[in-house]
Amino acid sequence: MAKIGIVGGTGYTGVELLRLLAAHEQAQVVAITSRAESGRRVDELFPNLRGHYDLAFSEPEVDKLAACDVVFFATPHNVAMNLVPELLAAGTRVIDLSADYRLRDAALWSRWYGEPHASPEFLDEAVYGLPEVNRAAIAGARLVACPGCYPTSVQLGLIPLLARKLVDPAHLIASAASGVSGAGRQAKIDNLLSEASDSFKAYGVNGHRHLPEIEQGLADVAGEAVRVTFVPHLLPMIRGIHATLYAQLTADAGDLQALYENWYADEPFVDVLPAGMFPQTRTVRGANRCQLAVTVPQGRDTVVVMSVIDNLVKGASGQAVQNMNIMLGLPETMGLQQVGLLP
Amino acid sequence: MAKIGIVGGTGYTGVELLRLLAAHEQAQVVAITSRAESGRRVDELFPNLRGHYDLAFSEPEVDKLAACDVVFFATPHNVAMNLVPELLAAGTRVIDLSADYRLRDAALWSRWYGEPHASPEFLDEAVYGLPEVNRAAIAGARLVACPGCYPTSVQLGLIPLLARKLVDPAHLIASAASGVSGAGRQAKIDNLLSEASDSFKAYGVNGHRHLPEIEQGLADVAGEAVRVTFVPHLLPMIRGIHATLYAQLTADAGDLQALYENWYADEPFVDVLPAGMFPQTRTVRGANRCQLAVTVPQGRDTVVVMSVIDNLVKGASGQAVQNMNIMLGLPETMGLQQVGLLP
Amino acid sequence: MAKIGIVGGTGYTGVELLRLLAAHEQAQVVAITSRAESGRRVDELFPNLRGHYDLAFSEPEVDKLAACDVVFFATPHNVAMNLVPELLAAGTRVIDLSADYRLRDAALWSRWYGEPHASPEFLDEAVYGLPEVNRAAIAGARLVACPGCYPTSVQLGLIPLLARKLVDPAHLIASAASGVSGAGRQAKIDNLLSEASDSFKAYGVNGHRHLPEIEQGLADVAGEAVRVTFVPHLLPMIRGIHATLYAQLTADAGDLQALYENWYADEPFVDVLPAGMFPQTRTVRGANRCQLAVTVPQGRDTVVVMSVIDNLVKGASGQAVQNMNIMLGLPETMGLQQVGLLP
Amino acid sequence: MAKIGIVGGTGYTGVELLRLLAAHEQAQVVAITSRAESGRRVDELFPNLRGHYDLAFSEPEVDKLAACDVVFFATPHNVAMNLVPELLAAGTRVIDLSADYRLRDAALWSRWYGEPHASPEFLDEAVYGLPEVNRAAIAGARLVACPGCYPTSVQLGLIPLLARKLVDPAHLIASAASGVSGAGRQAKIDNLLSEASDSFKAYGVNGHRHLPEIEQGLADVAGEAVRVTFVPHLLPMIRGIHATLYAQLTADAGDLQALYENWYADEPFVDVLPAGMFPQTRTVRGANRCQLAVTVPQGRDTVVVMSVIDNLVKGASGQAVQNMNIMLGLPETMGLQQVGLLP
Repeated sequence: MAKIGIVGGTGYTGVELLRLLAAHEQAQVVAITSRAESGRRVDELFPNLRGHYDLAFSEPEVDKLAACDVVFFATPHNVAMNLVPELLAAGTRVIDLSADYRLRDAALWSRWYGEPHASPEFLDEAVYGLPEVNRAAIAGARLVACPGCYPTSVQLGLIPLLARKLVDPAHLIASAASGVSGAGRQAKIDNLLSEASDSFKAYGVNGHRHLPEIEQGLADVAGEAVRVTFVPHLLPMIRGIHATLYAQLTADAGDLQALYENWYADEPFVDVLPAGMFPQTRTVRGANRCQLAVTVPQGRDTVVVMSVIDNLVKGASGQAVQNMNIMLGLPETMGLQQVGLLP
Repeated sequence: MAKIGIVGGTGYTGVELLRLLAAHEQAQVVAITSRAESGRRVDELFPNLRGHYDLAFSEPEVDKLAACDVVFFATPHNVAMNLVPELLAAGTRVIDLSADYRLRDAALWSRWYGEPHASPEFLDEAVYGLPEVNRAAIAGARLVACPGCYPTSVQLGLIPLLARKLVDPAHLIASAASGVSGAGRQAKIDNLLSEASDSFKAYGVNGHRHLPEIEQGLADVAGEAVRVTFVPHLLPMIRGIHATLYAQLTADAGDLQALYENWYADEPFVDVLPAGMFPQTRTVRGANRCQLAVTVPQGRDTVVVMSVIDNLVKGASGQAVQNMNIMLGLPETMGLQQVGLLP
Repeated sequence: MAKIGIVGGTGYTGVELLRLLAAHEQAQVVAITSRAESGRRVDELFPNLRGHYDLAFSEPEVDKLAACDVVFFATPHNVAMNLVPELLAAGTRVIDLSADYRLRDAALWSRWYGEPHASPEFLDEAVYGLPEVNRAAIAGARLVACPGCYPTSVQLGLIPLLARKLVDPAHLIASAASGVSGAGRQAKIDNLLSEASDSFKAYGVNGHRHLPEIEQGLADVAGEAVRVTFVPHLLPMIRGIHATLYAQLTADAGDLQALYENWYADEPFVDVLPAGMFPQTRTVRGANRCQLAVTVPQGRDTVVVMSVIDNLVKGASGQAVQNMNIMLGLPETMGLQQVGLLP
Repeated sequence: MAKIGIVGGTGYTGVELLRLLAAHEQAQVVAITSRAESGRRVDELFPNLRGHYDLAFSEPEVDKLAACDVVFFATPHNVAMNLVPELLAAGTRVIDLSADYRLRDAALWSRWYGEPHASPEFLDEAVYGLPEVNRAAIAGARLVACPGCYPTSVQLGLIPLLARKLVDPAHLIASAASGVSGAGRQAKIDNLLSEASDSFKAYGVNGHRHLPEIEQGLADVAGEAVRVTFVPHLLPMIRGIHATLYAQLTADAGDLQALYENWYADEPFVDVLPAGMFPQTRTVRGANRCQLAVTVPQGRDTVVVMSVIDNLVKGASGQAVQNMNIMLGLPETMGLQQVGLLP
């Protein structure tokens, strides 16, 4: 039974980790930290957890965390990069759900996050935790940087096309939409129900922090630079990301349905839908799963890929547990077999 | 053309006043104040107003406000009671949408609002702005206290029963539910879409500030003390209040449908639905209207009244404009003929 | 491993049974019927089930169903009462999620459902499947009538008060609200998103079919006739029931918090919240759990109980699986430990 | 005062016409037809209209309709094309909100609608009712084909780029999303709140009927053939369309903000937002307005335009009234000055 610590447990990825780990046979959460809520029972803040945990939030103390086998950071950026060096030095393995170690280039990171990186010496060692790409490296990693929610959905959707060099890498378009939980459990007027409900808008059009992460990951797969026009939108709902991806075919694409089905045939958490069926975010609600569809409308030269995930599961906490399973040598699907909650 | 000032224009009752007054033939908003947004164009904060106003928020200055014919306070409680004395002294008439002057008893006010009242000497003069009860007094008032949203829906629903002494006044039940806009445009975690959407809960069960206001108003009508068990609930939607009212019949009620229809026959903004039709909040969305239904389920001795309003219109800004029309001697319906937005 | 059949698998209680049973260690769904969808893969209709079932809908054939250990009816009323006699004769045990066997009085059933009962001879044998009341009888039952969703939430909320004779049984009020999934997966204009979203209304005020079921169950507990004014409302959301229950105290209630906590202390699926905390439907979303709170506002003589369930889980399919576990002698919580999906 | 008839008044565009015309000074609805609801009061079906209309649905009779000055068809396709010839012959002017006369090519129409066109001889005469393009022709038209909702938002967003030949016309991308009201007031399982709420999906990806209409309109403006990859999505909300448009710049675009502002400077219902502000569907809710923003993310070579409308107003009934105003020589904005309902 692995001992698990969670830093920053009051946000949505924190409570989602707790939900998933409550059903995990080989992991036990022994510490969950929050400065603001220190001393308060976890199930008082999140009554869905009543009966599942007998645990209170505690101050983040490195000693206590270092006693864990794995520590998850379910924090905003700029927390992990300050604590991780100590934890690694103590021999604790870390899965960071924040953005701190996702970009390999410290200067690029600084440009997008507006401050210097606190521990750039670990950027090279950190493994980008997209199991469908980096499974082997994750297994041996001390530090895994869990992908962002948009980047997960966009990369899983475009990888086969770029790996096979079927599309123009300089003109990729990712028109994506996320439920409001992606903005976290923070008091902001823009995310009030009265503001975000019954409406739809684009945001961050001129530059969202997930853009460099997407381009880094896709360039690795493509073997060359890629350019993505990434427009995120805010959906009037809680959970779910839907990425609609557009690319210009540069070659005879052949049977794209077969390409996608074969590419992901052995992946437990990527599900290519049968031809003619398009994904909906609700069919993956609460599940650690990406559902994909690919088509070329009107038989022209633009390919459209649709990719859905639950941003809090395959886009965050579920993927983090998947990484943990790989790191600990457990079956990759352990604790992650939840059926999507439909309706 | 009456010159109008609005204090506290960045909240939902503020923008709703602007929406309604944009279509008003005899009123022109000349000043709208906000300390936080001073200098910012109104239509930058609320892009629905583009093309309708050429106005920026300004600091609240008494001189400027005093030059208005009518000043609305669209503020939280504890603002109006400090400024109103000066405005009245300057001859400006005031319509306060906040709770500051709704209770006649300063001690009661202090108990519920947790602080002394700043200008208790005006509590007697202030007219409670429910036109269906106080129309004549409103016409001559210098200071009108606009009713709360829940109190409007609950009182309009129970008045005929209490005035006719048909029910037990000591065991009234008001099970009411409001859209989240009732909580205002404030950054609170509880009102995030991710928290309030797709859920339903009661709140303030042991004591909501609208309770003393409801009991004061109903006691006036009943001619005796009343006791209301008032349980508000939070609806996963933006606008609308639905009050389901239960009372024990103490006499042969006779034809309640006829009673209600007759009671409100001349009221432009209270609409008793035909027998067998129940109200929905959506049919009054955006409209200054209360729709009512009354029935006695299973022919027993409990009467059920259903009352719906748009909390921001008949429950706040629409009712405020209705009061303004009465005070200025204008047709009561001027600028208030909007059809509900359905669907 | 028990062999399970489901009659009527295309509705929401059907897909929810499949979701729950996918994680059940001792039950395997071997047949799921639907005339309309016969031959179609289950996971084509419900893509959340992809990878969890390799099953297609089939015609309802008694032979095939009779080979099951337990058959669930996830049908509208008027289906089970025609098929159940044959299944029982074949030795198959039945859990009926519909209303066919919930009322013991065939005449009463006919009055509310508008037709004669097809197999009234089984009404006496049928056990009302509310484990918190009838656990022992359920264990030995051949035929269990699963309670309705509203009746589950209302009964669990009122039982302690009535059993202890603390309230007036003739003037109970159940002001309840349900998400739209309670109306089933049927094409009705009233339940379109454009009609039911962003709105709230009461319905069935003069007589909802769950009323006689509620009164029958509560009378059993009270040991005398009860009268409930039951007003259901439609919530603009998918899952969840919130019942707000009002009763007049007829005696010194004592410590109601302690009463409720003790009453349900050993119940795995009824959770009395700590004093001062009120339930929300979202904290039980997807979970087989009823969360309760009790209070006496303003220290007067009206007690208020709040009771929430997920209408599709503790209000239907989860409770059905709970009954199955009891009938099969399995641990009552097997397969029912899901944590509520929050946010 | 123009006499107005509405054919097919039970759908959402019908009730929206009634809402808008209730406030119109120069138009009076004298007939509204519905076979299914003939004889029923309009305000019984749509209680938001109570007090605004004293009108019942009637059978569609050509004689009665021909007595109107203008007849609106608020019907599905395949109704207008059978009745219009008779009405035109009688001298009645027609504004068709359906798709029957939107495509000039009868063969193309048949391919997309799966049946022969019933009155192809009027396709040439019909004027495509996008005032921003065809104002002069609309003024003199006998028959106006109101644009579809998606086509309105997409065309208004792309026109300046195509007219100025700044982008590749063969690789336009329209990633658009609509509220569920766009699907009409029809009982379909897919549009139930339980199905469409809290989810997001693409649909009609391989061919939506609005595609040929979009391409026809844009080709007219571009002066050459265009190819649009049009992917519509279903939003979990009632009203609003957001089109996110992507195009490859083929020339130095210059100051696109200035281009858009100038292009639409005199248009009363197209509002180009200030640079850096992006549109939201909620700011045009209930208003006859298109709000636009244009930007080139990261200074690369892909231009992004965002375009929002209320699908029932500028995307249907509001635009229809705008056409009526033009046809009748009235001020174009008469009856269409509603402020968007925010929040």
